[in-house]
Amino acid sequence: MPSQPASMRDVAHRAGVSLSTVSRVLRDAPGVAPEVRQRVQRAADELSYVVSRNASGLVTGRTGRVSVVVPFLRPWFFGAALSGISDALREADLDMLVYQVGETRSREGWARALPLRRNTDAVVTVSMDLSEEECRRLEDVGVPMVLMGQKVSGRASVYIDDRAGTAGATRHLLNLGHTRVAYIGSRSEAWYSTSSRHRLEGYEAAMAEAGLSPWPVVKAPGHTGGELAMGELLSDHEPPTAVLAEFDDIALGAHRTLRRAGVRVPDSISLMGFDNHDAAAVMDLTTVDQAPYDSGLTAGRLTVDILNGAARHTHVEMPTQLILRQSTAAPRTTRGLFP
Amino acid sequence: MPSQPASMRDVAHRAGVSLSTVSRVLRDAPGVAPEVRQRVQRAADELSYVVSRNASGLVTGRTGRVSVVVPFLRPWFFGAALSGISDALREADLDMLVYQVGETRSREGWARALPLRRNTDAVVTVSMDLSEEECRRLEDVGVPMVLMGQKVSGRASVYIDDRAGTAGATRHLLNLGHTRVAYIGSRSEAWYSTSSRHRLEGYEAAMAEAGLSPWPVVKAPGHTGGELAMGELLSDHEPPTAVLAEFDDIALGAHRTLRRAGVRVPDSISLMGFDNHDAAAVMDLTTVDQAPYDSGLTAGRLTVDILNGAARHTHVEMPTQLILRQSTAAPRTTRGLFP
Repeated sequence: MPSQPASMRDVAHRAGVSLSTVSRVLRDAPGVAPEVRQRVQRAADELSYVVSRNASGLVTGRTGRVSVVVPFLRPWFFGAALSGISDALREADLDMLVYQVGETRSREGWARALPLRRNTDAVVTVSMDLSEEECRRLEDVGVPMVLMGQKVSGRASVYIDDRAGTAGATRHLLNLGHTRVAYIGSRSEAWYSTSSRHRLEGYEAAMAEAGLSPWPVVKAPGHTGGELAMGELLSDHEPPTAVLAEFDDIALGAHRTLRRAGVRVPDSISLMGFDNHDAAAVMDLTTVDQAPYDSGLTAGRLTVDILNGAARHTHVEMPTQLILRQSTAAPRTTRGLFP
Repeated sequence: MPSQPASMRDVAHRAGVSLSTVSRVLRDAPGVAPEVRQRVQRAADELSYVVSRNASGLVTGRTGRVSVVVPFLRPWFFGAALSGISDALREADLDMLVYQVGETRSREGWARALPLRRNTDAVVTVSMDLSEEECRRLEDVGVPMVLMGQKVSGRASVYIDDRAGTAGATRHLLNLGHTRVAYIGSRSEAWYSTSSRHRLEGYEAAMAEAGLSPWPVVKAPGHTGGELAMGELLSDHEPPTAVLAEFDDIALGAHRTLRRAGVRVPDSISLMGFDNHDAAAVMDLTTVDQAPYDSGLTAGRLTVDILNGAARHTHVEMPTQLILRQSTAAPRTTRGLFP
């Protein structure tokens, strides 16, 4: 291990070129012969030289870093979103700091606890469902902010139309001939409550359009909520013939209950989710794709654009897409779950 | 938005205390009355004051940041690992930079392309399966390195015993009475090849102990590989009665093929995975838990210990745990898949 990191001067010396040539090569600026460029790269490589963000930040006033704030890191959605944001920032040679807010959300002043100011050029939030007060608190950091998974007037936002997504999903089930279409939603105090509300509203609107009464069952989020809700639906005097879940994890939990009860999907009950979770494909689950990687890439690029001077309040609505698989079909004409 | 970030001086002025008192409160140092502490916190809060890492770094020589290098961000495993690392770093008030190497791994000098030097106090790699050459290249950065998901002699490592894990899983199937136990493995040029090899070896060793011939089928990683491999096994003149997959995603793909073929699990074929993927629980898949969150937490805390002066070559072997679910059972006594 070298006792001292190599300086740009060391690289210049080893490559036998001027300091400004090294700087041009490392910034990928034009006006350097390919052979010289190669020599500088080789020298930097041999010396393991990397530009210091701290040192360059003192000159440009930029840190070269963007902070991404997520509620959790474990769920599939956030990995896909971060992957897209990371790719976009890498294109612009920006580093990515990641802050998992998690349970600290419930604490007063969680935004202040993030060491964002002067440590970051911009903040991207992912599915944080920020209140107006929280938005203002983050804006006080004084750097541009981009909201992914949330649409806020006057602020840069990348989002999907949750209402249209579940309305389309519901219409798919109605078009197959189902009339007893239940919905499994989730209730969470801290997270996603706006998206949850919009998805339920989209379902209710499509049912109302068809002159049908909505049949929502609301439980805790995740597999367990789906399991319990499906148990409740199976206990009805006349169970539904189709069930739409607010997101795929709920649908997978519901599927587990159906499997245990020996109820066949889609023969006796059609089941669909929302998100296009990686596990949805292998489970043959019909769902609505919302491509979090693409949203992340878009949010990351929007951040870069804003750092380059673009307007700070652009709204980008990302498309959703119905993905038909084996878990939805026309209702059977006979009644009952085990005819 | 304020035009200028507040300085420590502004906080001192607003709170009506000295600069050194503000500094003590913000460093959580003792010797400040609770009432004063509260006043300073409130002033810092109102001014959205956060200590600048860059400025403090110039004094301490530390950046306050740890870089985490992952091959990918999307797969479930990395979200869980990052969540643990993030929690450990947060405990020590360190920020987390995340670098997704992905396809750039194939490029010469990918380690050099990471702007680590002088931007970070330490590097944690997750399931990077680094070669000796790559380890040395990262060490040239001159900061401590912790390897998670890989055991390397003389270097800080947090890992599981993959061989013991699959050997135990295989013995579970043998103990149930199975003798025709196949194994679905994966082959990937860039990633996880050491772990893949060890898992296969553990299976082979347990089969040899029992005096049985191993029956490995090796395909591409992931759902698709599992689907194809199970199709191949179902085409045998006498299919296996139990199948162990190298990891859960492969098992889920194999499960899909069985479902489509109408072969019941575990009635006709027992199936088990490895990892305890979030989807394994909802699929009732017997598996081997390797708790990546816990490994991440341990790797993060080891990093903090090393930054505080602990030895740089500690090895921590994390436990694995057999999780029995509904996908494994004794073989039926009659022969054939559809008796």
